[in-house]
Amino acid sequence: MVKPLPYVQKIQPYIPGKPIKEVERELGIKQCIKLASNENPLGPSPKVVQAIKEFLSNPSELARYPEGSGFYLKNALCELFAKRGLNLTHDEIILGNGSNELIDIAVKTYIGPGDEAVMATPSFVVYAMSVTAQGGIAKEVPLRDYRHDLEGMLKEITDRTKIVFIANPNNPTGTMNYREEFDSFMKALREDILVVVDEAYYEYVTESDYPDTLRYFKEGRDILILRTFSKAYGLASLRIGYGIAKKEIITEMNRIREPFNTNTIAQIAAEAALKDEEHLKKVIEINEKGKQYLYSELDKIKQIQYLPTQTNFIYIILPESISSKEVFDSLLRQGVIIRPVGPRQIRVTIGLPEENKTFIESLKKFFGG
Amino acid sequence: MVKPLPYVQKIQPYIPGKPIKEVERELGIKQCIKLASNENPLGPSPKVVQAIKEFLSNPSELARYPEGSGFYLKNALCELFAKRGLNLTHDEIILGNGSNELIDIAVKTYIGPGDEAVMATPSFVVYAMSVTAQGGIAKEVPLRDYRHDLEGMLKEITDRTKIVFIANPNNPTGTMNYREEFDSFMKALREDILVVVDEAYYEYVTESDYPDTLRYFKEGRDILILRTFSKAYGLASLRIGYGIAKKEIITEMNRIREPFNTNTIAQIAAEAALKDEEHLKKVIEINEKGKQYLYSELDKIKQIQYLPTQTNFIYIILPESISSKEVFDSLLRQGVIIRPVGPRQIRVTIGLPEENKTFIESLKKFFGG
Repeated sequence: MVKPLPYVQKIQPYIPGKPIKEVERELGIKQCIKLASNENPLGPSPKVVQAIKEFLSNPSELARYPEGSGFYLKNALCELFAKRGLNLTHDEIILGNGSNELIDIAVKTYIGPGDEAVMATPSFVVYAMSVTAQGGIAKEVPLRDYRHDLEGMLKEITDRTKIVFIANPNNPTGTMNYREEFDSFMKALREDILVVVDEAYYEYVTESDYPDTLRYFKEGRDILILRTFSKAYGLASLRIGYGIAKKEIITEMNRIREPFNTNTIAQIAAEAALKDEEHLKKVIEINEKGKQYLYSELDKIKQIQYLPTQTNFIYIILPESISSKEVFDSLLRQGVIIRPVGPRQIRVTIGLPEENKTFIESLKKFFGG
Repeated sequence: MVKPLPYVQKIQPYIPGKPIKEVERELGIKQCIKLASNENPLGPSPKVVQAIKEFLSNPSELARYPEGSGFYLKNALCELFAKRGLNLTHDEIILGNGSNELIDIAVKTYIGPGDEAVMATPSFVVYAMSVTAQGGIAKEVPLRDYRHDLEGMLKEITDRTKIVFIANPNNPTGTMNYREEFDSFMKALREDILVVVDEAYYEYVTESDYPDTLRYFKEGRDILILRTFSKAYGLASLRIGYGIAKKEIITEMNRIREPFNTNTIAQIAAEAALKDEEHLKKVIEINEKGKQYLYSELDKIKQIQYLPTQTNFIYIILPESISSKEVFDSLLRQGVIIRPVGPRQIRVTIGLPEENKTFIESLKKFFGG
């Protein structure tokens, strides 16, 4: 039989879970509350739905290949950044089938067998998987105080290092690295290493000293800034994200990108989403209120700790005696789906007010509160 | 600056063309007829539009990640194949962001630097690009009489060969290889080589002795059969295709596949499309009528030759003195977009009756007919 590449076999195969509907049927639960995937509980802007319906009004357009260049969505992105004082051109933007695909494309462009990438752990699991799949070496540096240990990461740099991944804010901890420490990191980093900053939760950040990564893009550094429409814009179902980097980097990544990697409805939806700033504001507001409510209620459960978050989810640390699986199972039986992210760590997405309330009740029930 | 992998730089970067709307504006043409990308001119089943609208009726679902396993679409595929007497299981199916992505996944799973893949030329350009992007060697064997030279391809097999690509019917020629010659090829081929048979145009085939590739799947051979919803099912905008192979191969490919590689609307649309067999029949009928009309009209233009087709497009060979670019430009100015596929070869998609008529008129105008 044909042999897969040796390094491919090191990757844990993705074991797809059953659809929620099937789980509900099996457990005899009417409707689960899903707080497991950091999805936007409010959904996207109504303008998104309107734009998709307009597209569907001429159904034969469904049979046409997508706009391979993402022309109109790139126009909308350029407009948005222009408002913030940054002149972007189309050849400084790359669109992906979710920012996940952009991680894969960056890795395929720069990492060959034996090349190295430095990243934090725990962080977004895709970085290490993607690097391993190319025969590269994923050097994982433990978080320090639940945040990227940027100094520790610098120490892992070798001649073979091609990429450093920084998730900021980080998933699953919801923490962030500050401007000053990021600036020191960039100052110390060799200039021929690509810094991939994953800003998937960018729109949710409330701290003021968030790093200005675009500054390094403007200065011509080797930086790729990833953003997504899957979180604050509420389009996870459609798979669309974007990356910003200097033209030389985007040109190389475009050699690897499939010509029709992003679908038409995603492009149209993202364009409409970008133009509804009011809705985005509402999303952030409801997240902020949910966050404050959850903080105050979690404070009452003395057995647990949690980390203040810069995102739409909260990282919770359970007491020594309790496993995340126990909590996961108990909450699932109560119709609440959260995510175990370590042996004693769970992650919960900030939902709608009633969802947050149900989550807190189910957690209190577990802890006998 | 960070250096891309040496083999990545060998790939022609994808230079995105301008959107059709922009071209029309520049040329001052009202509405172009697009016969360049082998798209289904009838569009998808009305049931597809209905299914998408139903999904949109609960907009917050747009914010949910797709069903990573493609559970319901796989169910629908299993039902379809069961009707044809084949019992498929979910772990023998892989879904892709178009079958293009499945080509990439197969290559990433099996081809490392220095590994070889054998393919025909001209054929679907993605095979060679994908192999090159992994540092593999694409061995391109010229067509013989405009069809895959399967014997010639066997001669290119070495110890480093991991994959053979066969597009059947072939793009851009529209020709096919027959059952008997495919069977001889499979008999002669080493069993540890993966045969990727790209059957993107499968539904359009009218010849009776089309190879029974599923037979080899049933026999446990290393074969991956690719089909798509982009052609006869009319869903190119949404990016969805599927592959069938034995469980061992799908398991390896799943290590490489991004968990949410296919979007929700594509999954829903494909499921609805599969269930409307009447619409598919209509698509094939209109293609057949268009084909006969184009044959009879092309016969009248004595300067050109064309190949009988098993697909929804026709490969046309121009006289010595005329370049495909000349014809392309002339037709574009007349508002008809076709595809130059060689110095003297063009490819035209079979369109709706009025589109075919306009194409013939524009071609006759060029040839002074």
